[in-house]
Amino acid sequence: MSRNICIHLDFLSGQHKAKIRKTAEEAGFVPHFFLRSQFEEASACLQHCEVLYAHSPELLRTAPAGLQWYCSATAGVEPYCQNDGIFANPNCLLTSTNCYGVTIAEHVVMVVLMLLRQMPVYIETTMRHSWGEHLPVHSIYGGSFTLLGTGNIGANVARRLRGMGAARITGVSRSGKPLPDFDAVYPFQSLDEVLKTSEFLIMSLPSTAETIGLLNRERLALLPEGAFVVNVGRGSAVDQQALAHALNSGRLAGAALDVTEPEPLPQDHFLWEAKNLILTPHVSGNTSLEYTRDLNVDMFCANLQRYAQGRPLQNLVDRKRGY
Amino acid sequence: MSRNICIHLDFLSGQHKAKIRKTAEEAGFVPHFFLRSQFEEASACLQHCEVLYAHSPELLRTAPAGLQWYCSATAGVEPYCQNDGIFANPNCLLTSTNCYGVTIAEHVVMVVLMLLRQMPVYIETTMRHSWGEHLPVHSIYGGSFTLLGTGNIGANVARRLRGMGAARITGVSRSGKPLPDFDAVYPFQSLDEVLKTSEFLIMSLPSTAETIGLLNRERLALLPEGAFVVNVGRGSAVDQQALAHALNSGRLAGAALDVTEPEPLPQDHFLWEAKNLILTPHVSGNTSLEYTRDLNVDMFCANLQRYAQGRPLQNLVDRKRGY
Repeated sequence: MSRNICIHLDFLSGQHKAKIRKTAEEAGFVPHFFLRSQFEEASACLQHCEVLYAHSPELLRTAPAGLQWYCSATAGVEPYCQNDGIFANPNCLLTSTNCYGVTIAEHVVMVVLMLLRQMPVYIETTMRHSWGEHLPVHSIYGGSFTLLGTGNIGANVARRLRGMGAARITGVSRSGKPLPDFDAVYPFQSLDEVLKTSEFLIMSLPSTAETIGLLNRERLALLPEGAFVVNVGRGSAVDQQALAHALNSGRLAGAALDVTEPEPLPQDHFLWEAKNLILTPHVSGNTSLEYTRDLNVDMFCANLQRYAQGRPLQNLVDRKRGY
Repeated sequence: MSRNICIHLDFLSGQHKAKIRKTAEEAGFVPHFFLRSQFEEASACLQHCEVLYAHSPELLRTAPAGLQWYCSATAGVEPYCQNDGIFANPNCLLTSTNCYGVTIAEHVVMVVLMLLRQMPVYIETTMRHSWGEHLPVHSIYGGSFTLLGTGNIGANVARRLRGMGAARITGVSRSGKPLPDFDAVYPFQSLDEVLKTSEFLIMSLPSTAETIGLLNRERLALLPEGAFVVNVGRGSAVDQQALAHALNSGRLAGAALDVTEPEPLPQDHFLWEAKNLILTPHVSGNTSLEYTRDLNVDMFCANLQRYAQGRPLQNLVDRKRGY
């Protein structure tokens, strides 16, 4: 009996499919491709598959107990880590796909510069067809940045800030282990101390039990007067009411959120009107870059070879820890 | 009789003045400091000075025939190159101060990313308190860029694009000489050919007889469908009506102008309403960064030592050529 792979993704090109097909056949598998609109067909096929490559909690819920590996095409995997029986097979392997570092890092550099250079004010002035005044600006060159989260995204951001002449880049991670492009990395236990000198805080944390509500009212109050906050991880990490208050009172100079709680943000939500806040609708890490799509497929194929050979998978997620 | 320097600038700190005073005294000069509001006092003092460090065509017009060197604190010096007797001394030396490369390059990286990532659309959506759709984005990583102007600004932009993974950086300069961080540099004579493959054009040209109207309707039409244009040099280099037409018709995907003709732009100007156009009020190169101010003073002091020793000045401008 053949070993089957169900693939339920919209972004695959002909070349991507050819690469997956070749890798699968060499490893003794048959791939079956479905568009996201073909949910029923994908689900029917999935009943005979041991591998699923997708980003759909709904489809995963229809998987049989025989599913051995779910490769999520996303970096964030919190929907798959809730202990609610989403996996019929409790021992099913779960991997994430951390291919979004480049595009998210470019988003971060963009909003960092927009905040440092007061673009929210200039944008508002331009809307009124009015030539604005010269406002004081800050620069990445010579600046200090704290990166809360030092994984694929944090590393890509650090490299770019360093390349643009940042004077000091501080990381905060679980382990606190030293990393290239970081002047220092502290463990999470030191977060409160680090925040006191963080003029510019950039957050790229997954959503886990430990990160939900991490940047609460008390921690926001530790940031220096005039600090900036960027979040491209998960909206749940930030107390949004406390953030909006700190922005509107002028204690924080600006913020950029690509992730919010909830998403989409309702039309009457208070965040839309917060002062000097750049909001984007969770687009920093989408799959519209060819590079990102290629890497997504490459990472799946590399892991498929490992899976076929019985070797440990890369980017394996501990479903209890959530990352 | 003492040799005097008139300094008419607002951005100088106490440390800056101390540095200028020390350098001047060692070179046998006495500096006299005035704020921009002290025009009459500065002009009276100027009558006894051989050096002026300022950025004021109006003040320069009141200078005596004894003025030997005018150090403009700006990078652009076109007001001082008009052949209308602005210099009482026809042999007075003119220097520019190219200290704005870092801050302008950060502005360029910001607007490049804003255009590649469709921020004008997201900003408009956000204004309506509406969660937008995912739009296709492009990246600096793997991208191709043409830099029209490869001086201090162009070099700083190229270094940053290279650091962020740009695949190809093409320069266009007067000489066409090879430069670090550029894959190729072509002379101005090749401009039309280069434009045909320029997906992203970044302009940082001074205003001279040769650059006025350079990006005219015909040359804009040479750019590929969906190209982007950024201008941080001088507004006179671009045919604004042709640019607005190319944007509004969708032939160009977006543009960012920090310089326009005229400045300020009148409230009823057609540029305010052009599609996917990011307008900023000539702020990319202001003196609000400490780094920029320090470098401005450092460059004046280094040139003052050269001047006192009778050595050739750096950043000397040929007033006939205009740069």
